[in-house]
Amino acid sequence: MPRYQATLLIELKDGILDPQGRAVEGVLKGLGHPVEEVRVGKVLEVVFQAENHLQAEEKAKAMGKLLTNPVMEVFALEALKELP
Amino acid sequence: MPRYQATLLIELKDGILDPQGRAVEGVLKGLGHPVEEVRVGKVLEVVFQAENHLQAEEKAKAMGKLLTNPVMEVFALEALKELP
Repeated sequence: MPRYQATLLIELKDGILDPQGRAVEGVLKGLGHPVEEVRVGKVLEVVFQAENHLQAEEKAKAMGKLLTNPVMEVFALEALKELP
Repeated sequence: MPRYQATLLIELKDGILDPQGRAVEGVLKGLGHPVEEVRVGKVLEVVFQAENHLQAEEKAKAMGKLLTNPVMEVFALEALKELP
């Protein structure tokens, strides 16, 4: 069965306070980068097997849904590629 | 000055043990997704001002470099867009 690598981004919803982002913002400002806003999220690279690209997409989205807290977070399937 | 949003991915280098990824792997397997490997990293959405796209790219890469531990991590500028 072909192997696929999915890149899933999990980020806090807009409006949800992001203390880690605020901390990074402070660090960047202190180092001479006057940024407006920083939001920090997670990226997951998942390797798995699937019959074809369509099934791989379905599996990746199902996993993203499992790993996301729908109250505070949103996920996006950023990339999906077949591995050699 | 135009505003830009950069998406920076910071991930552990290949070969560096990723306990968080292992944990997620275990969770997914337990939930019926027989994944091969999971690697967890950070995604940063940074909003800042720059004169033009080229300068924005330079600034984004400089910030990525500051926020990355070169011994264990690699960063990639995943996306850069001008905000309206």
